[in-house]
Amino acid sequence: MAEPLFRRIALIGIGLIGSSVARIAMERGDIAAEVVANARTEATLDRVRALGIAHRTELDAARAVEGADLVMLCAPVGAYAGLAAAIAPHLAPGAILTDVGSTKQSVIRDVGPHVPPGVHFIPAHPLAGTEHSGPDAGFATLFEGRWTLLTPPAGSDPDAVERVAELWRRCGSNVQRMDAAHHDRVLAIVSHLPHLIAFTICGTADDLEEESRQEVLRFAASGFRDFTRIAASDPVMWRDVFLNNREALLEMLARFTEDAQAMARAVRWGDADYIEDRVERGRKIRRSLIELNQA
Amino acid sequence: MAEPLFRRIALIGIGLIGSSVARIAMERGDIAAEVVANARTEATLDRVRALGIAHRTELDAARAVEGADLVMLCAPVGAYAGLAAAIAPHLAPGAILTDVGSTKQSVIRDVGPHVPPGVHFIPAHPLAGTEHSGPDAGFATLFEGRWTLLTPPAGSDPDAVERVAELWRRCGSNVQRMDAAHHDRVLAIVSHLPHLIAFTICGTADDLEEESRQEVLRFAASGFRDFTRIAASDPVMWRDVFLNNREALLEMLARFTEDAQAMARAVRWGDADYIEDRVERGRKIRRSLIELNQA
Ligand SMILES: NC(=O)c1ccc[n+]([C@@H]2O[C@H](COP(=O)([O-])OP(=O)(O)OC[C@H]3O[C@@H](n4cnc5c(N)ncnc54)[C@H](OP(=O)(O)O)[C@@H]3O)[C@@H](O)[C@H]2O)c1
Ligand SMILES: NC(=O)c1ccc[n+]([C@@H]2O[C@H](COP(=O)([O-])OP(=O)(O)OC[C@H]3O[C@@H](n4cnc5c(N)ncnc54)[C@H](OP(=O)(O)O)[C@@H]3O)[C@@H](O)[C@H]2O)c1
Repeated sequence: MAEPLFRRIALIGIGLIGSSVARIAMERGDIAAEVVANARTEATLDRVRALGIAHRTELDAARAVEGADLVMLCAPVGAYAGLAAAIAPHLAPGAILTDVGSTKQSVIRDVGPHVPPGVHFIPAHPLAGTEHSGPDAGFATLFEGRWTLLTPPAGSDPDAVERVAELWRRCGSNVQRMDAAHHDRVLAIVSHLPHLIAFTICGTADDLEEESRQEVLRFAASGFRDFTRIAASDPVMWRDVFLNNREALLEMLARFTEDAQAMARAVRWGDADYIEDRVERGRKIRRSLIELNQA
Repeated sequence: MAEPLFRRIALIGIGLIGSSVARIAMERGDIAAEVVANARTEATLDRVRALGIAHRTELDAARAVEGADLVMLCAPVGAYAGLAAAIAPHLAPGAILTDVGSTKQSVIRDVGPHVPPGVHFIPAHPLAGTEHSGPDAGFATLFEGRWTLLTPPAGSDPDAVERVAELWRRCGSNVQRMDAAHHDRVLAIVSHLPHLIAFTICGTADDLEEESRQEVLRFAASGFRDFTRIAASDPVMWRDVFLNNREALLEMLARFTEDAQAMARAVRWGDADYIEDRVERGRKIRRSLIELNQA
């Protein structure tokens, strides 16, 4: 077995993502010699102990990070500023501080100022997840064949970047470096906007008069169902994502809304060519996905 | 084997839906003693003959319906008015004229006036489909466990309604009667609006600068992919659906847009409670679907 990458890794937040990393680290042994798990509530740590997915649990984040050479924030991004302030004085010199948050500019904004000199801050985002949350929802194959994007600030220590990249490769993930602002734009269109739309259309359907609502459920297979699949996710996590990728999300939503309005106008005025053309372009994107084996 | 329901059934249009009905009728034998297939092009009829899914093919719709006791329109709904005018003089007395179109008020508007006295007009819509089209795309299990909605105008002959219902039950479908206007509203939200949104967001992504577009494809698994699954469907069929369910579709799109704008406003002004509440409602609908085994 390869030498463990880290002596001690502290997972701050141990839900779907954190507990998946914990499972992999416990199973493989070559990621960290010791896995420490922290959560907000004792109930979550009880589950972690019952599942046996960490060597040690700590309810206090500051104590959890002590002596860790890798600290990974795995809580909703809205909690990062508070967590960073709490743990900063306790981070070991030379430690790497990383995260898994779905937004990256906000993380740099909220965590960056707290990072003490000598600690390496390497933000990351594994593009993998399910609509479930909590430590029971994690599993060791979650990241297999998926992408993890690293958004290290300019001037980051190359060795620290490489160690975080290697951790994700050992989790089964492909790794790509990206500028944080670019990350937030790309994620706004591939993930955040689709989720916003999915939540919204579910709400629109839920507002229908009772009879129609029942029929929406009964006849959901006609298309609606595919939209709701991603709408079952955790409200706090998504609230935080939306609020912390505000600019890019609002821009993509504005573009989408313009396009939807143009489609509405074409429907209203019977512009058959326009509609056919737009539908054709939708298919083109879909076909590209199939060719890339992403469908 | 039960007595065939019909002596001769004429399928006007033989793509995904028509060829699925044809396959079932040919396999079961208790739906029609003779299956006649009509399409717009000889190429499609060549395929039908090669596949052996009809007893007879006819390029001329008028000739196809002659002597048939069931005529089923299976072309895009925009072609219905022209087809109805062409076949009306050739419909056998006492025949049933039905269809499979995704919109129902427009069908009654476009076909109704052409129906000769003594012919029973029983519009129907099987809620089943895939994103593929043409006679090769059909299959005999397409309608199994799915719903078919019948929207017979007031005063329709109960016996004719029952025979169409029985045809769909023999195709494996559950059958429900519904008012045509109500059908169009329900379908607008469960099917037509989701498709319009899916086509639109694919177009929005396709309009991004080249670099981001590549990354949309690469990282599609983060949510976008679920949206594109239904965006691969036939442009002409969907163009016709949108144009023929204009009022209900525009109303549902307007409701959705209002809701999306309210979400945008909450994101812009940081209204965390509003966002959480809307996300929570989205999950509720999703959970209802899971409970109903529709997910
Ligand atoms: N789910 C996805 O699909 C996905 C994908 C990629 C990245 N991410 C990112 O991964 C992170 C975690 O997501 P997840 O799905 O793993 O969430 P999760 O399953 O809901 O788990 C969140 C964890 O964070 C803890 N936590 C919550 N609020 C906290 C606070 N204010 N202070 C300290 N700890 C807190 C929770 O502790 P308690 O259980 O004690 O409350 C829990 O252990 C988020 O930043 C998210 O954006 C998620
Ligand atoms: N696809 C779905 O998911 C779905 C679900 C439920 C209901 N429907 C409804 O079912 C109907 C057929 O859809 P589909 O998916 O089976 O379509 P499809 O696979 O594209 O087949 C359409 C058939 O109609 C013929 N046709 C097209 N334009 C015509 C015209 N102007 N005049 C006469 N025939 C014409 C075509 O002939 P050629 O091949 O010779 O052009 C072809 O045989 C539509 O009304 C649609 O709304 C579809």
